[in-house]
Amino acid sequence: MTPVELRALCRRGGFDRPTAGLARGFVQTNLVVVPADAAFDFLLFCQRNPKPCPVVEVLEAGRTEPACAPGADLRSDLPRYRVYRDGGLAEERTDVTELWRRDLVAFLLGCSFTFEEALEDAGVPLRHLALGRNVAMYRTSVACVPAGRFSGPLVVSMRPIPAEKVALAVEVTARFERSHGAPVHAGDPDALGIADLARPDYGDPVEIRAGELPVFWACGVTPQAAALASRLPFCITHAPGHMFVTDLRA
Amino acid sequence: MTPVELRALCRRGGFDRPTAGLARGFVQTNLVVVPADAAFDFLLFCQRNPKPCPVVEVLEAGRTEPACAPGADLRSDLPRYRVYRDGGLAEERTDVTELWRRDLVAFLLGCSFTFEEALEDAGVPLRHLALGRNVAMYRTSVACVPAGRFSGPLVVSMRPIPAEKVALAVEVTARFERSHGAPVHAGDPDALGIADLARPDYGDPVEIRAGELPVFWACGVTPQAAALASRLPFCITHAPGHMFVTDLRA
Repeated sequence: MTPVELRALCRRGGFDRPTAGLARGFVQTNLVVVPADAAFDFLLFCQRNPKPCPVVEVLEAGRTEPACAPGADLRSDLPRYRVYRDGGLAEERTDVTELWRRDLVAFLLGCSFTFEEALEDAGVPLRHLALGRNVAMYRTSVACVPAGRFSGPLVVSMRPIPAEKVALAVEVTARFERSHGAPVHAGDPDALGIADLARPDYGDPVEIRAGELPVFWACGVTPQAAALASRLPFCITHAPGHMFVTDLRA
Repeated sequence: MTPVELRALCRRGGFDRPTAGLARGFVQTNLVVVPADAAFDFLLFCQRNPKPCPVVEVLEAGRTEPACAPGADLRSDLPRYRVYRDGGLAEERTDVTELWRRDLVAFLLGCSFTFEEALEDAGVPLRHLALGRNVAMYRTSVACVPAGRFSGPLVVSMRPIPAEKVALAVEVTARFERSHGAPVHAGDPDALGIADLARPDYGDPVEIRAGELPVFWACGVTPQAAALASRLPFCITHAPGHMFVTDLRA
């Protein structure tokens, strides 16, 4: 499926699954929608924390058609959304057109699906994909740089990488600046304040075998967690794994 | 002089000159201050036009002490400021403390002084510096990507570079992503809509000799020009050449 076909299918209500592995070669993004009076602070938070919050595009208040996907509508063209009120999950929906307001600002932020394809193509095995699981994610003891009302810990994703391929994994992902880029840490989870790799805060655990190192990348859950922690009166995000697929080539 | 010494001298009113060539090895920045209700649009303009508007730091509304220069005060530690009202130049001052308001947001944007030092160190001659002139700057026919109320042409600076050193000049400046980075154009000013290199829109003209190419870099006047063109009711900038000197190493 091309990005256009996938988005059209979502819009018709005919697609309600995660987007990993679909429309390969195209950039997928996280979606975070906040009211205009929080938009400066949130953009500043992204600007100050570019590794976990790589900005692919920010739209003017009220706008729903991004430049990175002409003809698309961010209210209907993702498979599934989460709606938060006062910092709590209010509902999941497959379309948020009815909830849209003229003061809402949409942020599209880079996502690791983009670099995972490149890792696989380069011959770096990714166990969670082989097992059909979600990637393991952890809240760390590293604080993001706060901005206005937004603050919170850096959230990382972890992939076990064979020691001899760690350098290759760094090289490959470093090229993807708008998809979290190079790892933030390799080995020793203690240094990030992660007590037990077998118990991720989000996603599914994955085994680390002899000869492998846990390698950690900044994760797009970081800005979402910061947005929720600030208890915004209203916020929309994609549902986990149900990303927006752009027309940008990875 | 160290950056701390230079800023202290400005604060005491003892320094009212351009900062080119001072505190070598430290990042100097443009300053643009806009009211909070325009800050999201202006940050978005910078985000969408990173070559002319490389964000070094943006402060929360009302704040005057940047993280890139602990102890500094942006209201007094630049040598000279310009104050604009309704898009027109109202006055120049050496201190804007009296004019400061809690709703003002300060933007520090990268400046080419930073990479000019590196060019000289690498053996690329810069004629305007040898002559003690300001660099030549031109409004181009290339439009920036608009954001909210902000739009305008890309403004470029031009330096004549010997043909055999063009590649070196590209390599050296490409490393300075937060100081405009690599050139946007080399040769043929017509392609940028520049009719006559001898008549720059800002700064001083400089001769181009046989064997040299005009090389064009995105220029920090771009965001300033966009801010003024939007006729903000109130706006403060540094006076041309009178930059803010940070503690960041170039």
